[in-house]
Amino acid sequence: MTRPFPIALIGQRFMGRAHSNAWSQVTRFFDSELQPVLHTIAARDSEGLAPFARRWGWLNSTTDWKRLAREDAVELVDIGTPNDVHREQALVMLAAGKHVACEKPLAGTLDDARAMADAAKKAAKKGVKTFVWFNYRRCPAVALAYKLVREGRLGRILHVRARYLQDWGGPQTPLSWRFQKKVAGSGAHGDLNAHIVDMARFLVGEEVSEVHGAIERTFVKERPLPGKKGETGKSDVDDVVLFLASFAGGATASFEATRLAIGHQNDNGIELNGEKGSLRFSFEDMNVLELCEGGDARTGGWKRIMCTSAGNHPYAANWWPDAHVIGYEHGFTNMAADILRTLAGLEPEVPLPDFADAYQTQRVLEAALQSARQRRAIKLSQIK
Amino acid sequence: MTRPFPIALIGQRFMGRAHSNAWSQVTRFFDSELQPVLHTIAARDSEGLAPFARRWGWLNSTTDWKRLAREDAVELVDIGTPNDVHREQALVMLAAGKHVACEKPLAGTLDDARAMADAAKKAAKKGVKTFVWFNYRRCPAVALAYKLVREGRLGRILHVRARYLQDWGGPQTPLSWRFQKKVAGSGAHGDLNAHIVDMARFLVGEEVSEVHGAIERTFVKERPLPGKKGETGKSDVDDVVLFLASFAGGATASFEATRLAIGHQNDNGIELNGEKGSLRFSFEDMNVLELCEGGDARTGGWKRIMCTSAGNHPYAANWWPDAHVIGYEHGFTNMAADILRTLAGLEPEVPLPDFADAYQTQRVLEAALQSARQRRAIKLSQIK
Amino acid sequence: MTRPFPIALIGQRFMGRAHSNAWSQVTRFFDSELQPVLHTIAARDSEGLAPFARRWGWLNSTTDWKRLAREDAVELVDIGTPNDVHREQALVMLAAGKHVACEKPLAGTLDDARAMADAAKKAAKKGVKTFVWFNYRRCPAVALAYKLVREGRLGRILHVRARYLQDWGGPQTPLSWRFQKKVAGSGAHGDLNAHIVDMARFLVGEEVSEVHGAIERTFVKERPLPGKKGETGKSDVDDVVLFLASFAGGATASFEATRLAIGHQNDNGIELNGEKGSLRFSFEDMNVLELCEGGDARTGGWKRIMCTSAGNHPYAANWWPDAHVIGYEHGFTNMAADILRTLAGLEPEVPLPDFADAYQTQRVLEAALQSARQRRAIKLSQIK
Amino acid sequence: MTRPFPIALIGQRFMGRAHSNAWSQVTRFFDSELQPVLHTIAARDSEGLAPFARRWGWLNSTTDWKRLAREDAVELVDIGTPNDVHREQALVMLAAGKHVACEKPLAGTLDDARAMADAAKKAAKKGVKTFVWFNYRRCPAVALAYKLVREGRLGRILHVRARYLQDWGGPQTPLSWRFQKKVAGSGAHGDLNAHIVDMARFLVGEEVSEVHGAIERTFVKERPLPGKKGETGKSDVDDVVLFLASFAGGATASFEATRLAIGHQNDNGIELNGEKGSLRFSFEDMNVLELCEGGDARTGGWKRIMCTSAGNHPYAANWWPDAHVIGYEHGFTNMAADILRTLAGLEPEVPLPDFADAYQTQRVLEAALQSARQRRAIKLSQIK
Repeated sequence: MTRPFPIALIGQRFMGRAHSNAWSQVTRFFDSELQPVLHTIAARDSEGLAPFARRWGWLNSTTDWKRLAREDAVELVDIGTPNDVHREQALVMLAAGKHVACEKPLAGTLDDARAMADAAKKAAKKGVKTFVWFNYRRCPAVALAYKLVREGRLGRILHVRARYLQDWGGPQTPLSWRFQKKVAGSGAHGDLNAHIVDMARFLVGEEVSEVHGAIERTFVKERPLPGKKGETGKSDVDDVVLFLASFAGGATASFEATRLAIGHQNDNGIELNGEKGSLRFSFEDMNVLELCEGGDARTGGWKRIMCTSAGNHPYAANWWPDAHVIGYEHGFTNMAADILRTLAGLEPEVPLPDFADAYQTQRVLEAALQSARQRRAIKLSQIK
Repeated sequence: MTRPFPIALIGQRFMGRAHSNAWSQVTRFFDSELQPVLHTIAARDSEGLAPFARRWGWLNSTTDWKRLAREDAVELVDIGTPNDVHREQALVMLAAGKHVACEKPLAGTLDDARAMADAAKKAAKKGVKTFVWFNYRRCPAVALAYKLVREGRLGRILHVRARYLQDWGGPQTPLSWRFQKKVAGSGAHGDLNAHIVDMARFLVGEEVSEVHGAIERTFVKERPLPGKKGETGKSDVDDVVLFLASFAGGATASFEATRLAIGHQNDNGIELNGEKGSLRFSFEDMNVLELCEGGDARTGGWKRIMCTSAGNHPYAANWWPDAHVIGYEHGFTNMAADILRTLAGLEPEVPLPDFADAYQTQRVLEAALQSARQRRAIKLSQIK
Repeated sequence: MTRPFPIALIGQRFMGRAHSNAWSQVTRFFDSELQPVLHTIAARDSEGLAPFARRWGWLNSTTDWKRLAREDAVELVDIGTPNDVHREQALVMLAAGKHVACEKPLAGTLDDARAMADAAKKAAKKGVKTFVWFNYRRCPAVALAYKLVREGRLGRILHVRARYLQDWGGPQTPLSWRFQKKVAGSGAHGDLNAHIVDMARFLVGEEVSEVHGAIERTFVKERPLPGKKGETGKSDVDDVVLFLASFAGGATASFEATRLAIGHQNDNGIELNGEKGSLRFSFEDMNVLELCEGGDARTGGWKRIMCTSAGNHPYAANWWPDAHVIGYEHGFTNMAADILRTLAGLEPEVPLPDFADAYQTQRVLEAALQSARQRRAIKLSQIK
Repeated sequence: MTRPFPIALIGQRFMGRAHSNAWSQVTRFFDSELQPVLHTIAARDSEGLAPFARRWGWLNSTTDWKRLAREDAVELVDIGTPNDVHREQALVMLAAGKHVACEKPLAGTLDDARAMADAAKKAAKKGVKTFVWFNYRRCPAVALAYKLVREGRLGRILHVRARYLQDWGGPQTPLSWRFQKKVAGSGAHGDLNAHIVDMARFLVGEEVSEVHGAIERTFVKERPLPGKKGETGKSDVDDVVLFLASFAGGATASFEATRLAIGHQNDNGIELNGEKGSLRFSFEDMNVLELCEGGDARTGGWKRIMCTSAGNHPYAANWWPDAHVIGYEHGFTNMAADILRTLAGLEPEVPLPDFADAYQTQRVLEAALQSARQRRAIKLSQIK
């Protein structure tokens, strides 16, 4: 009763591996009408391409990503490339009628993001679907948080505290494209704030209405040039961006992304305080959701929920017994499962972000930058 | 070799108890040339005054605080009253040549704070000293943090994340003066942000140079009137104020104070990230300082330091053996000890805030309010 | 309405300070019909006696503890001396009709303990009461645990895991009487296991019926002689004793006391697992009780209860607002309050251990030693 | 340069899935001279066999496991079946010259284990190798612990505290073969204590020399019969076994396995205290190792090491960037990589247990049972 579902992937670096793994693993752990066939991998680096394809089981490989648009068999193209090429690749594939799953952030600029959202809207009329790999939504603990908020367990949301703290961006880290604005667009902002803005919008279920103030700062301005002893080059992206915002329903929110917080390696964290309770999550302890419900002054308190119970927690039934914890890559596999469900006409476990959704996240990022640069509050209605 | 040192106290509520306890306990645990004598307690509520004096050992009591200025024997007046009377009481006592220890925040308005700082400056010429009860500086863990920063263990400070989260301000909490602007001046802002602005300035050792944006919000606008079933009154102070700031040396900083964060009862917390390491503290786990130093990728990580080792940690030698933990009230006793040391011509364990210092904290609070109301960044140089 | 209640204390070291503080502070924080009067302090070290008495407010002092028995005014004698003199001191005071509050463990040997329990039984006929300072029962978190077990929140208790881990007993620690068997009786066993056996019996509410096996070990056999450079002396007490036991109702139990566990300074901890739920406590985080109740596979988990809520948690109303945490010494003050309540004919917050109760703890310690030495299981019925 | 390496697997339940996943994933993340070929899956349940084979990519399937011995191409047979058939299956395969990787515990009885160790010894002469799936050794945090102990970071080991606590064995859990002694051999003991005895021996690097006492207890004696409403059947395995032991070098040790500890789902935990430092691990937080080193009274304390740094932590370079955490299944994949390395003549990251090693673990389990039943200490020299 399964149907082969040929996919192609562009990119063979970090995200290339994570996506290849997800497509390989998904039907081992999830029942699916659609059976992914790893049809073609496309990437620029011709030397590494053959071994990568062999290792991950891709049937074909190419250095010309445009070929994928002409490959009739391919039904979905997965884009795992740097931000500055997302727009061109996505537009070509959508025009060719392929479903597209694109890495986050949707694009390096708001213009690109808007163009992609427009193209997705047009393609949707022909039944073409888009997806953006905001993988953290699909950690079981985050998916549970989403459900608890929907069920009203927290009541009206009053405060959101979101942070994504890393520590790898110190002055000894060599220059790479990630530190060059013309290639990367931004530093911590697009890389990290994109994730937590998506997560906050997803959990609260409302749009951001205003950015009240922001700081964008580059602490490290010169970095060693790799392979050139003693020489340095210019590092011109932000190391940290933090901003304050309001949600449409009135909740206050703070966001901080940095690559200079020693002690935090991948601390993608959020806390919500509602009228009836609070919850919090940090990716460094990804199998756990913490919940504190009001109203029990005697035996109330923060509760550590191990989100690994089959039948009780999202995705858990597909993996291992209680507290046989899962890891980073499983978020991608869970998302691949939900993409397949959606394309088979079923509901995903929790909502999947598409280009229109990711464009809203991009608008918030843009508002934060404008607020930092103009030293004033910016209403989202000012950002098109 | 000890000399009696008569003090007076104004106020017999929460702070009246905490201060009475500190003055009673200090010489049981600390050696001191000056031996506090609990000379007179002054308070408005005449009915409770006698039992309070008896319980805490005050020799005299009065409902007329001005009498203290005329009491020659009294050398120090401790002010533990609401913010709106700090100015008048302090000015009278300073004029009378009394040392003054005033509860925080220094005042309810910037005008009052400035007047107090000016009066303190004048009195200082006659050897009169002022102190402000920012008690949290004297938690051993915070004092250790201060010393580690001074020693350069964190290197240059890049980020400060400060919060003071409480949960008692929900809509079921009855109206009291704390929720009325004309009496309290502000809500969470003066009550809680005052503490964390002081702590951040103290630990970083620099002044705030700019507030980049702020949110001031009142979520609960009506509260039950105590004793009047079914009736409500207007609650018009802020429930939450959050703001972003820069320190003079370039560090970014975020501050949040709220009374609506379920799960946080007295979560006065701060984290510093420096070029060489990070540290963090939360009052709910007050005996612990967490430290993470960079440079050891193999066995590095956040370290829980139990700050209770006699001979190794500030104040610890005066209390109990290792890990026989101390509590909230000990911060006040430690501060009383440092006040006595200072008045005896010795160095306190860590610096004590005086009126001039507390006035700087007040300027930051004012800048945050102006930023929230004007929806733009405010440089501290604009705040007089 | 209060009545002066003169007490005497023997001992001026660590416990002398802790008890003096408790008797000084108790009526500042608790309402009491009986108002302790610090009548006389007795101790051997004549030099330190006067300053100690002055510092703590003792009206009289003596180096002859027997005088206390003849002092008619004194109603209660508090014994804070080494274990080997408890018996003689207690027997004299009981014979003189004084109430006696004795430091734990009740005695250094089972014989002594039995004699003391017998004397207490006799004295009780004349209305004389005894108390043993198992102070940890009166941490609010432990008292809450007691109540939750009584209310059936855990159901039938199945497992008890108790430990008291410290780290100060390494080979560099100089020889003192605590390491000499003829003076101290035992090492970690009497010092630390006494506490956790009391706590386990208190919380479970049953007696131990059998010790299944035990290890008694002395790792450090020579220690530096203080003041004699390069010389060492024999250290012959246990550094660690661990044993397995059953409670009368069938629960299994493990106990471990050691002075050689780096990382644990005062880790007096216990966990109970019942048919319906579990709870755990560690003194190093003394304001917190952790509770996990079964039956909610979706949002269940360990809950951190901050036991500081006035009106909801034992003793909390007497101290500070929510989460304004308390420390080590407060356990003693809470116990002083409960002793005064008991002597005024009221119920203590949770049961107070008397000599008969502490003798049961001593029997368990004895059974553990016999089990270790005889390399076999020992039923408590074999221990008289 | 890679060589195909055909393997067969017996078993398609929980362990069948975990092993199939490991063999599928290993060469995607690890470089290996040997490329596993999933040749044949054998299992009794013929109905599920074909879908299982398809899902995991096994080329052949059979309900007759003995056929594997006759399949010349197969070089290694992986045994993932219940304990009572390990012996027969292993002996047949070893006799046929196949390498054997067997699930833990090695066997259901000491006799079986001894026979298997003897057969392995004989087979070794022909170059045949054996492995036992003690997967937790290969959590990066546990492997790091192993290395730190070897490097002397803890000094001489004094105490070991090992526990494996689960919560799924309450009276509402239906009867299955796991609760029937004639099939399962034991309950928590063989299932859980086997893991922690292996881990303790592995980390300490010494053998257990004596069991000092033990408790074996069955709390739940009747369980619902699945599918037969209202009927119950006899549950006769242990729910909990705890025992005390010594290591050859003198360290004390406690072990506890239970299925009745609410709040602990898969809490496989261990702590070592050495003369110079301590470390601890719990599988529920599997990416973290906690380390506390002595000698720094001022800034020492327990350190949370996130064991995910490529180049610094075992196995980490094969997975994802820093703090992109891994999960349960990765322990098996890491072990598959080490098996392949060993068979290719290379060193594994940390030592692999073979049948001789697992037989030592089995002797300790046997000594614990004899100690519980005979109510006395048992020296390991008494266990053959």
